[in-house]
Amino acid sequence: MNEKAFQDFYPDSYAQCYGCGRLNQHGHQIKSYWDGEETVCRFMPKPYHTAIPGAVYGGLIASLIDCHATGTAAAAAYKAEGRSMDTQPPLRFVTASLKVDYLKPTPIGVELEIRGTIREIKGRKVVVSAVLSARGVPCAKGEVVCVQVPEEWFSRL
Amino acid sequence: MNEKAFQDFYPDSYAQCYGCGRLNQHGHQIKSYWDGEETVCRFMPKPYHTAIPGAVYGGLIASLIDCHATGTAAAAAYKAEGRSMDTQPPLRFVTASLKVDYLKPTPIGVELEIRGTIREIKGRKVVVSAVLSARGVPCAKGEVVCVQVPEEWFSRL
Repeated sequence: MNEKAFQDFYPDSYAQCYGCGRLNQHGHQIKSYWDGEETVCRFMPKPYHTAIPGAVYGGLIASLIDCHATGTAAAAAYKAEGRSMDTQPPLRFVTASLKVDYLKPTPIGVELEIRGTIREIKGRKVVVSAVLSARGVPCAKGEVVCVQVPEEWFSRL
Repeated sequence: MNEKAFQDFYPDSYAQCYGCGRLNQHGHQIKSYWDGEETVCRFMPKPYHTAIPGAVYGGLIASLIDCHATGTAAAAAYKAEGRSMDTQPPLRFVTASLKVDYLKPTPIGVELEIRGTIREIKGRKVVVSAVLSARGVPCAKGEVVCVQVPEEWFSRL
């Protein structure tokens, strides 16, 4: 795709996330896009991202769902404000709650597709559901409660 | 500690997990132990396991809770059968469902402690709750439904 991913718009200071930060050279650097009213991310696990033999590591699946959801939340929030992701101020979301149901083992060696759906936008909160599929077969589903980053968090660390 | 971790007893063929497999050289290789009726795992994130600046990546937190819980489930299952983890047949668990609530940003650069509590053992299912703390302060809590690995899964992959 030629279009920029949601994550390409994150301000540099927020682009260090191991899952989705374009500036984290050790990380997954996932990329999420609109596809109609849904969002989509495609990712090829490394051969060592294994769980039981032949299956993708569940922690990676949780990570993909998590970061695709926070990216989706950001994109949805811009859309709700009627502005594009390259406008100011930037909107960035973190995860308040993550729930993943593992429906079946996810085969390794296959590109995974994670599709996100926006369930709710309310104030600083966006709820996103996601389905992770391999070869068109849903293997895991998730629900993520995302909240817009509160500035005061940084001073607490 | 001199005692062996739960993960040290996993059969070689199940010890490739990115989160907890002692044979996965790319992975986290977490180690879990009994501490009274609870279980404990300590883990030092890498500097690049970041989320927002200064905070640990939520996907790593989910991964640590996940693998510590499946290890706890295995240990609990052996205990329920009144036998040690070096006896046959081996018991190995995977995750059916993972729920993580992120209570506050988890500071990076600090050893994390994950404590597991067994909530339920019923047939092939073990439910484990976990609290992840940094400097004694809970930063995330999780609940994990673990199920004993069904042999027929392998032929489906």
